[in-house]
Amino acid sequence: MNHNAVTACVLIIGNEILSGRTQDVNLNHIAQTLGHWGIQVREARVIPDVSTVIIETVNETRARYDYVFTTGGIGPTHDDITADCIAEAFEVDLVLHPEIATRIEQRPAPPDVMASRLRMARVPEGATLVDNPTGGPQGFRIENVFVMAGIPAVMQAMLSSLEGRLESGPMVHSHSVTAYLGESQIAGALRDIQSRYPDVDLGSYPFFRADRYGTSLVLRGTDEARLGMMMEEVKSAIIEAGETPQDVRTQ
Amino acid sequence: MNHNAVTACVLIIGNEILSGRTQDVNLNHIAQTLGHWGIQVREARVIPDVSTVIIETVNETRARYDYVFTTGGIGPTHDDITADCIAEAFEVDLVLHPEIATRIEQRPAPPDVMASRLRMARVPEGATLVDNPTGGPQGFRIENVFVMAGIPAVMQAMLSSLEGRLESGPMVHSHSVTAYLGESQIAGALRDIQSRYPDVDLGSYPFFRADRYGTSLVLRGTDEARLGMMMEEVKSAIIEAGETPQDVRTQ
Repeated sequence: MNHNAVTACVLIIGNEILSGRTQDVNLNHIAQTLGHWGIQVREARVIPDVSTVIIETVNETRARYDYVFTTGGIGPTHDDITADCIAEAFEVDLVLHPEIATRIEQRPAPPDVMASRLRMARVPEGATLVDNPTGGPQGFRIENVFVMAGIPAVMQAMLSSLEGRLESGPMVHSHSVTAYLGESQIAGALRDIQSRYPDVDLGSYPFFRADRYGTSLVLRGTDEARLGMMMEEVKSAIIEAGETPQDVRTQ
Repeated sequence: MNHNAVTACVLIIGNEILSGRTQDVNLNHIAQTLGHWGIQVREARVIPDVSTVIIETVNETRARYDYVFTTGGIGPTHDDITADCIAEAFEVDLVLHPEIATRIEQRPAPPDVMASRLRMARVPEGATLVDNPTGGPQGFRIENVFVMAGIPAVMQAMLSSLEGRLESGPMVHSHSVTAYLGESQIAGALRDIQSRYPDVDLGSYPFFRADRYGTSLVLRGTDEARLGMMMEEVKSAIIEAGETPQDVRTQ
């Protein structure tokens, strides 16, 4: 969309998402948050707790996108293998991070419980911390890969700690309008408008609400003046088709 | 997990998911439904409405998994490019499917509106139909790739039409139990149990509910007798750690 766009990939690591046991909500939060920071999520993958898959996916995506954000698999149990896999992907050792260990050791526990907890202090050599404002063990960053918890509240806290600390590209703005029209009733006009605004992404999303068919039209692009001009054309197309543009929003 | 497992990949196609505008709920439904049918979702990818990305991803995943299920991008507007991309991925022409066209033509419309609607009748040559019990245009199948709508209610109807028509492997059963324990308090015992049941996948998922920390332990595998034996050991570990096993479920 833009040559200086900053791009990201989100990796949701966890069998529980792929089995359908758990509905992922992390991608949506990360996509919205990074969008506000001028970073565009270009792809997301949901992968199982299988080390070969995690390693391969991390290496493929970190080469392809400016940033990779992972969620899941950094707890204290045997199925938490993300840190191990990231270390393998970067071909570095896994080491105990003293700051994470200090935070973990603040809460006393019997030796065997503490040993399990300290697994969460293991990071790939060279990693720096991603803070955890909830007070629990921190996540970490190595090169362009950010490793965060899977629990939404913890992930959100970790992500918030990165605000202002990442590269950012031009903000993608979004202008939207809805109309009680079937998509086909304005498909021709939309195609024509899109062809004259190749720099703006015009999405058409049908819905069915209160017994009526409608379409949400979403314009996304970095140049707000262009979005404004294009929106006027979209509104005209809606009126031309005999309906009223509704619920115009810009963000 | 099993040598005769039947595997699937889900491709969620749509900028609106990656921008954070829309929360995907299709993966969860597909994963649960296929699970009940003896098909294991091993990976999911969320990709943008960009033809090169769609083509590459379809070709990569259809070679790797028994089935690929796509959602999104089969409507009548310019941004609906999934059928075109699947045809390109398979290196076949896009043709008008007479049964889809017949269904579309049942509802009268002005010529330009009908022309847009008939875009939804275009399928890759050789594709067969995936029925759409909502009455709208059908989806399609080509080889091991199933192409479905993005609107959840329509996707769910299309998927339901495939029941009993796909290959299936051994059912993966799931037995679960919760305990008001921190994960670290039983991490050692769980690791030991997991090592003795390599054929069962033991997941530990922490939660925070009603002011208490707890852990859900989920055993997944194809052999119910083994799941039952393993569950007894997990329950003993919970009791050993001073808590009570709760909310035992099997499915």
